[in-house]
Order: sequence, then structure tokens, then C-alpha cells
Amino acid sequence: MTLILSNEDVSKLLTMRDVIDVLEEAYEELAEGRGVNRTRSDTLTPTSYPEATYGLKSMDGVVPKLGVGAVRINSDIVTWPKRGNNVRREKVPAAPNNRWVGLVLLFSTHNGEPLAIFPDGVMQRTRVGATNGLGAKYMSRPDSKTVGILGSGWQAGTQLRAVCAVRDIKTIRCFSPSKDNREKFAREMSDDLGITVTPVEQPEDAIRGADIAMCASNSIDSIFFAQWVEPGMHLSEIKRPEIEFAALEKADRIAIHTKDPHPLHFTTKDLAMPDKIKGKGWAEAKATLDIATLPTLPELIVGRAKGRDNPEQVTAFLNNMGMGFQFAAAGSVLYRKAKEAGAGHDLPTDWFTEDVHP
Amino acid sequence: MTLILSNEDVSKLLTMRDVIDVLEEAYEELAEGRGVNRTRSDTLTPTSYPEATYGLKSMDGVVPKLGVGAVRINSDIVTWPKRGNNVRREKVPAAPNNRWVGLVLLFSTHNGEPLAIFPDGVMQRTRVGATNGLGAKYMSRPDSKTVGILGSGWQAGTQLRAVCAVRDIKTIRCFSPSKDNREKFAREMSDDLGITVTPVEQPEDAIRGADIAMCASNSIDSIFFAQWVEPGMHLSEIKRPEIEFAALEKADRIAIHTKDPHPLHFTTKDLAMPDKIKGKGWAEAKATLDIATLPTLPELIVGRAKGRDNPEQVTAFLNNMGMGFQFAAAGSVLYRKAKEAGAGHDLPTDWFTEDVHP
Repeated sequence: MTLILSNEDVSKLLTMRDVIDVLEEAYEELAEGRGVNRTRSDTLTPTSYPEATYGLKSMDGVVPKLGVGAVRINSDIVTWPKRGNNVRREKVPAAPNNRWVGLVLLFSTHNGEPLAIFPDGVMQRTRVGATNGLGAKYMSRPDSKTVGILGSGWQAGTQLRAVCAVRDIKTIRCFSPSKDNREKFAREMSDDLGITVTPVEQPEDAIRGADIAMCASNSIDSIFFAQWVEPGMHLSEIKRPEIEFAALEKADRIAIHTKDPHPLHFTTKDLAMPDKIKGKGWAEAKATLDIATLPTLPELIVGRAKGRDNPEQVTAFLNNMGMGFQFAAAGSVLYRKAKEAGAGHDLPTDWFTEDVHP
Repeated sequence: MTLILSNEDVSKLLTMRDVIDVLEEAYEELAEGRGVNRTRSDTLTPTSYPEATYGLKSMDGVVPKLGVGAVRINSDIVTWPKRGNNVRREKVPAAPNNRWVGLVLLFSTHNGEPLAIFPDGVMQRTRVGATNGLGAKYMSRPDSKTVGILGSGWQAGTQLRAVCAVRDIKTIRCFSPSKDNREKFAREMSDDLGITVTPVEQPEDAIRGADIAMCASNSIDSIFFAQWVEPGMHLSEIKRPEIEFAALEKADRIAIHTKDPHPLHFTTKDLAMPDKIKGKGWAEAKATLDIATLPTLPELIVGRAKGRDNPEQVTAFLNNMGMGFQFAAAGSVLYRKAKEAGAGHDLPTDWFTEDVHP
């Protein structure tokens, strides 16, 4: 049977600890050439949806040690509204019942069969958190106790869960532009983590004195600035260019999640996407940073590179780009736990296989 | 509702004429920069299946004019057995009930929703046929009457259907190494096409005097040789290097399906794939042909290039590589006809969408 799981199933079954542990194991496979990732691609075209762009995104990865491969697909209606000073990237829940469209398909490397199909949302935020959690594990000071986070949205909670899973965090301060949002977030995360999360009125108040500074917004403009960098601090972001480039220049050591390219494919006609988005991403960083010399997360994990040499160094972890490989690794744990728990809808595997040579 | 369709549904609903017509329309979109393809990628790793390689293949494409995007996925157990003098690429039906695994997911560009999920096999052979059919339409002599085909397997039938859809074919001769196979194929295709298909004992007997020579094997060695080329002949193949390179050198005009690259991603350890496969494909052709100067099928269709200048020229159409774009285009027709016919299983769209921002 092919298992159809929901986000509720994923929430219930898959813990942050599960994902951090299985990613650590899987990255070792990647570093040693025994696992493979096919980098994310974005295919962007016009849509009839007003002032939006249609995006079909996919990424694949295979972890033979775990017996699985995965393809993650997003079918997005994307807009770029301006909020305050910042342009944000927002996906519109335009599918029936006001829903978003993201799917993971999990396959067996033993016989090719489709094991499971499930929405990507909960796993996505967990893997984003776990990735920055692993960045913090290998780069931040081992005695880090204080976290400052910028953002209180759908990604911020898993960022905190992840950093608390790898460091003995005692103090968390959170800034986001909306008072209501940051206060609600602080209440909820204090309960969730058993650690007091304090909402603050200015971003500087969150960052000042933090051992670990995390950006967790959906801004495509910078929100973390060079004058906030302190000795010994570890910086992380969810996407370029949340940490402004001048702040990165103050880092003694920078590691990146992956050096895989990120191909954009788009129509040459009628695209609503702002020009500055096209090919933006890493352009600035590539122009100045010597990317080739930066260690990747898998290299940190297998000890081929060191995250920091001393407690005074400033470290930064960049490029938390989704990898199909991560969805395969996390999917293997989810599938095992779902089978044990009898979760999900079983559909006939024959619906997703064929007696015709493809 | 999201529609789950079977290969039987696709067979019943989607005609060769449908696919040729919709591809012709879609290629115009591609040529004009109004449609986008994300080229096929293959991710190859070890598998526990004996003497095989696991392959996770994906390709995406979006045709805004038709309101759809598609991702095609194959999860294959691949072997390279030697049959006679030739090495063949064979996928093992290793999934439960001895089945193969190939899926197409069709999405709406209007609101992102998953419209349909169906196996790829029948559409795959139809699109392979239709692509070479379009190649023949734009390159072969308009008065072509005779076809010689090498191969009698799962791809050969749709090659014939396609060429008969674009030219007024009167005579077809077929060679394949197994007498039983070619005779059975000839009987079946004679019935199917209403044109006598004659099985012959040597490949030369099929090709001699043919206006259109088609290779439709699963050999990864050459099966069509330079000494068989005759003035005015149009040559096609399903994959490199069925037509030997010396035969291509005799062609006055060569067009290729697409110039998109075809990235291979593979583990550096323990791969059962023969060394000569890795990166083979176009290596030889690229070393000699000036690929950049060759017209593509979309360019032929919009008239930016000419298939032939006179009846004496030898023409060749190459690189029938699958494109997600083709599955989107053909999928749009299939989906419309399936809705009209009430075909398939309806599943709740909510199973494949989410209320969580991905």
C-alpha cells in the first residue's frame, strides 16, 4: 500500500530531535559520496492570478543507507508585497479551500515503489529549523545560552526548537514588527520550550548580548545589520540576504549549507516577478565571498572543516536552501513511525505504479 | 477533487493526434519564451537489488497558455544486460506485483492545485512517438510513402502511429532480432494502422528504399549504419547513439529536439552502472557536431529554421529526450477529456494540499 499522510500526522510523528539526528546521519552519506542530491529548481511563469507568478519547484535526493529517495514539489502562486520597508515573498493559498500546494513523494531504493505521499509544510519548517540547528551545533560556542531571534512567523518556532535541541539555552528574546504577533509567539513558545521567550520592541534589544542571533523572517531585504555583531556570536538566516553583507564581512568563519547551484527557469515574457528577484539570491555574496573556499555543513559534520577555533570568533551559517535529500532522510523516519502507528490512508500501490514499461 | 487516472484511462482517452497537435501548440509557446521546461535530471545510486542501479528521474514543465504545469517522476531499478552484440538499458519491474514506477503530477497554473496524478507509461510512449512524428513532419520529404523501422518493442508501435499521422505512408517494413517478435508486431500494427507492415530478416531489408528510417530499440549501441543512408532519406532515433555517428555525418541537415542539458547526479561509491554510461549520451556528438548551430524542433515549428531545402537532402532528427513540458501539454488534453468522460478515481484535493505555509 502507498501511504497518504497529512501534516497532522507529520506533526504528531516527527520530532525535531528525529530530524536533527537523521539529517546528521544523512549528511555524512552526502559528504562521503554515498548519497546524492539533485538541487532545487524553480520554474516560473505567468498565472491568471492577479499580480502573481506561478512557480513549480522541485528537488530530489536519495539516501541509499536509509533505503529511500524523495521528490518534493511545490506548485505556488507567489506574490512580492511590500510590507513597511521590506519586500516579502508570500505564497497565496489559492488552491480550493484556501490551501497551499506542496507534496513529498517518498520512494524505496530497494524496489522503486512509492512508499508515501504527504504535504511538505510541517516537514519543511522542521527541516529548516534542524538545518540551522546543526549549523549552530557545529559553529556556535558550546556554552551558548542566549538566543535573539528576528521573526515570529511560521518558521521562527522551529528555529527555536532546533537551537534548544543542540545548546543548553536559558534566555530567548524575540523581535518582530507586529507587537501582537511577537507577544503571541513569545507566549506560545515559552509554553512549548519550557524556556521564557521575551518579546522586545526593537531588533537590537533581541540581538544585544545574544550568543546566537537567528533571522527567521520572510523578508527578501536585509534585517540584521553589521553594527549588531558582537564577539563570539553565531549568526544564522533562513534565506539570503536577511543578514546584510557588511555583517557577514565581520564573521571570522562562514559555512554554507550546500554549494549546489539553484537553477531558475523562467518565461522571457509577461512575468510578474520583480526584476531584482531574478537571479538575485547569491549574486552579491558570490561577487565578494570566495564561495569555493567555504566549508559546507556535511564537511563540518564529518570533521573535514572546523566551525570555530575559539570563543571570540564570529561565525555565520548561510544558505538554508531546501534539499530533496533532506526530505528523503526525514521521510524515512516519518514512514517508519507512521507504519508503526498505523497512521494515514492506505491506497493501492497499483494506483501509483504500472504494468507498462515507462 | 484530484483525479487519479490509470494507463488504461490514458490509452482510451489520449490519441496520437491529440498529442501531436498539443505538442505543436506547446512548442510554439516554448520557442516564443512563453512556456518553460526544466530539463530531465537523473539521480543514480546503489540499490539492494542485485546488479542494478537505483534511478530517481524527474522533469518539470509549465505551459501557461494551457493553464498547467507537470512534474514527471520515475523511480527505477535499472540494469544494463548484454543481448547479442548490444548492451541494453532495461528497467526491472521490481515494485509490488512486478510493476514499474513512473508518475505524472499535473498542476493548475491558475491556482496551483493538483489536478491529476497518473502513471507515465502510455503517455511516455505516445510523446516519444509524437516527437519523432513532428520531426518527420518538419524534415522528411512531404511525399514520403515508405518507412523502415528497426525495433518491434514497446516504443516501435507509437513511432509508426506518429509517422502515419504526419505523412501518407503506404509501405512499412520492420526488422528486429527476434523473428517471433517482429512477426507479432507486424500483424498487430497492420491491424492498428490499416497499412501492411512487413517483417523482414535483415535490418538492411527494412531500410533499403525507405523514405523515413526510424530506430526504435532500447540499445545503447548503434544499430543504424552509414552505408544504409540513401539520398532524400529522413532518419530518426529514440536515443543516442542508435544512429551511428558516421551516418549522421552523411546528413545534410540535423535538427535536435532540445538543447537543454541533461544533468546526471550519482554517488561516487558503489555504483553498478557501467562506466561507459556515465556522461556518455552526447559526448561523441558534442565532440564533432556543432550543437549550437543545430535548429531545435520548436524553431522548426515556428519557422525560424527549415527542415530541408530539397528532396535530395538527407535529414536527421535527434535527442528525443523527455521533457516535463511535453507531459504538461499532453496532460492538459488528458485532463480535459477525463473530466468530460468522468474517468478515474476522485480523491479529496485536500489530501494533496495543505493549510500550512510550505
